[in-house]
Amino acid sequence: MKVAVLGFGTVGYGVYEMLKNAEGLTPGPVLVRPGKADEAFKVDSIEAIAADDSVDAVAEVMGGVEPAFSYACAVLKAGKHFVTSNKALVAAKGPELAALAKEKGVAFLFSAACGGGVPFLHNMSLAVQSDTIELVGGILNGTTNYMLDAMQRRGLTYADALADAQKLGYAEADPTADVTGLDALRKIMLACAVAFGRMPVEGLNNEGIDSFTAEDAEYLKKKGLTCRLIVSGVPVGENSLSAFVEPVLFEKTAPECSVLDNFNMARYHGKCSGDIVLMGQGAGRWPTASAVLRDLSDIISGRRYMMDPDVKCVCADNSAVLRKYCVRLPKEAKLSLPAEKEEVVGDNKYVYTAEVPVSAMHAEAEKIRKDGAKLFFAAIGQ
Amino acid sequence: MKVAVLGFGTVGYGVYEMLKNAEGLTPGPVLVRPGKADEAFKVDSIEAIAADDSVDAVAEVMGGVEPAFSYACAVLKAGKHFVTSNKALVAAKGPELAALAKEKGVAFLFSAACGGGVPFLHNMSLAVQSDTIELVGGILNGTTNYMLDAMQRRGLTYADALADAQKLGYAEADPTADVTGLDALRKIMLACAVAFGRMPVEGLNNEGIDSFTAEDAEYLKKKGLTCRLIVSGVPVGENSLSAFVEPVLFEKTAPECSVLDNFNMARYHGKCSGDIVLMGQGAGRWPTASAVLRDLSDIISGRRYMMDPDVKCVCADNSAVLRKYCVRLPKEAKLSLPAEKEEVVGDNKYVYTAEVPVSAMHAEAEKIRKDGAKLFFAAIGQ
Repeated sequence: MKVAVLGFGTVGYGVYEMLKNAEGLTPGPVLVRPGKADEAFKVDSIEAIAADDSVDAVAEVMGGVEPAFSYACAVLKAGKHFVTSNKALVAAKGPELAALAKEKGVAFLFSAACGGGVPFLHNMSLAVQSDTIELVGGILNGTTNYMLDAMQRRGLTYADALADAQKLGYAEADPTADVTGLDALRKIMLACAVAFGRMPVEGLNNEGIDSFTAEDAEYLKKKGLTCRLIVSGVPVGENSLSAFVEPVLFEKTAPECSVLDNFNMARYHGKCSGDIVLMGQGAGRWPTASAVLRDLSDIISGRRYMMDPDVKCVCADNSAVLRKYCVRLPKEAKLSLPAEKEEVVGDNKYVYTAEVPVSAMHAEAEKIRKDGAKLFFAAIGQ
Repeated sequence: MKVAVLGFGTVGYGVYEMLKNAEGLTPGPVLVRPGKADEAFKVDSIEAIAADDSVDAVAEVMGGVEPAFSYACAVLKAGKHFVTSNKALVAAKGPELAALAKEKGVAFLFSAACGGGVPFLHNMSLAVQSDTIELVGGILNGTTNYMLDAMQRRGLTYADALADAQKLGYAEADPTADVTGLDALRKIMLACAVAFGRMPVEGLNNEGIDSFTAEDAEYLKKKGLTCRLIVSGVPVGENSLSAFVEPVLFEKTAPECSVLDNFNMARYHGKCSGDIVLMGQGAGRWPTASAVLRDLSDIISGRRYMMDPDVKCVCADNSAVLRKYCVRLPKEAKLSLPAEKEEVVGDNKYVYTAEVPVSAMHAEAEKIRKDGAKLFFAAIGQ
């Protein structure tokens, strides 16, 4: 199977190199920017790839919704399999691409878009054929995990942890999408679509790690708790689901505590299989390229889709899931949620809430911040 | 695809029930013992299944090499796909079955034979198509993990931990295969065959947990170390590999420490993917049945094999892998391996060796035991 590659950056180069040694796969043309086709295997127009009958499949690793979406449509319409690592594309246009691929009888797979090298979506999409997935979640953002780990194990400040992550290439110059939880949120959208046939497109909640401080890290360490940024998706009723991102505190026996540096840990709970936990590198050239290649090998085996072409776009409902929270806020601030205990540390207090709806906690945090107070919160892991 | 089931015990019942709700699969006849076919869907002769043209695939969950092997040959020869959870069968006859399946153009898959519900072999067999696996291993025996965990977290004696495991159905009345590491050894044979195309059939080393005591658990706890029974397989040169089972000690940040109760944790290291860690229930009706069903769904997708039909049977070489060990033996006994330090505790001493070949440690333990001394050893985790 000859595979064209769209994009020749970090991941694109990795995919191209891996294609040279993969069983049953050969590298085809690589799409680069106009005027940059300075080697025989490079082309600078998508039309050349769509019209090339020797190309059986296309791997897109450019990122961003456009022009990736137009390119995807062009090659799918030309009857070529389409594989992508682009979570923004799949979160925005996944259902459309799944329907188009089905119509054309070709594959649409996107393992690399969620969990990098971790074979999360691949395994879930196979499991749903015979099992019922009851929960998806885990640590799906390596940048924030690196920062949380650096702050908690090495005692770094938030600013130093971020600078460190940027120096190592784990965080971008503008880290907003990672630290606010937006990147993780896109990934839980994809995971829900695969696991439940429902993609949450509104009503989601996301709390990142940008309120977490060295003082919080020190306080939690004394309690024997480790903070991780966790995504969670659970079906609610027949047509909805809960889907959110928030920091969660774990006791040291939890597998989440052993997820160090920029690793990812995805989990799902199947009614029959029970808990399945998958851990690995969430990003980087070779891990991400290996996930793209796994999808391509899977196409040779005969697989065609991981998102049901009839996937429903739904509004998330985070009011039905209850959690206890640990909330840090100024001593004098008031938390309008039922509290079980509180502890004053310096000018702040840590309030432990009773079980409250996830949506209520996120709304309360927004309200308190609007009033000008700084606040951090994390769910108590179960 | 209509699936016949061979065996109607714990797992067989689970497979049969799951087939009723699986996409693209329907339950066919179930093979039971002669004279026990007391319901319409049960049959008591393999010939009836081999001759049934409506049966497309057969799932074998009886265990044991015979008559499972004869049955497997009969249905493969009849052109039916064959899926099994039977590690003894695959360890003894895997290469023959793989060759026969290839000849007949049908599938031979055995995910459930290694790791229970953990999708270990499945993912590796897909990964090898585009990546190079450099290491396989992990915790692949749930019975011993349950016992080790009970002794270390709950302070149970070996005898009480075993009794507990038997009461819960995790250990058999004769627990020898589990506690001596034999069961884990069979699984590493399968994992090596899938990952490296080489199956170690002699020269393996296995040390189980039957020498581990409550005193060892207490001693290690003070050191902040957790003991797990670990399998390991690594290619050696062009034609050999190391393959062994032994207790290993881990610092508390290692993922192995978070594997509690009877869970399994498999890992492989791909040259491109990096470390991939998979955790889940290693046994039990539904987890094992879900692995069988995953293979069956995979056949519908088009997959045909996970063990290369040209797999080579080789002699393992454990002399090339070096490890440091912690060895407990009587104060007066002598360890003929280079030691870095030792600590006397009561009538025993704990000796910490320099790096020594794995095979040398196992041979030395055998020698000391032949001399009548009791000894426990565990590698220091890396």
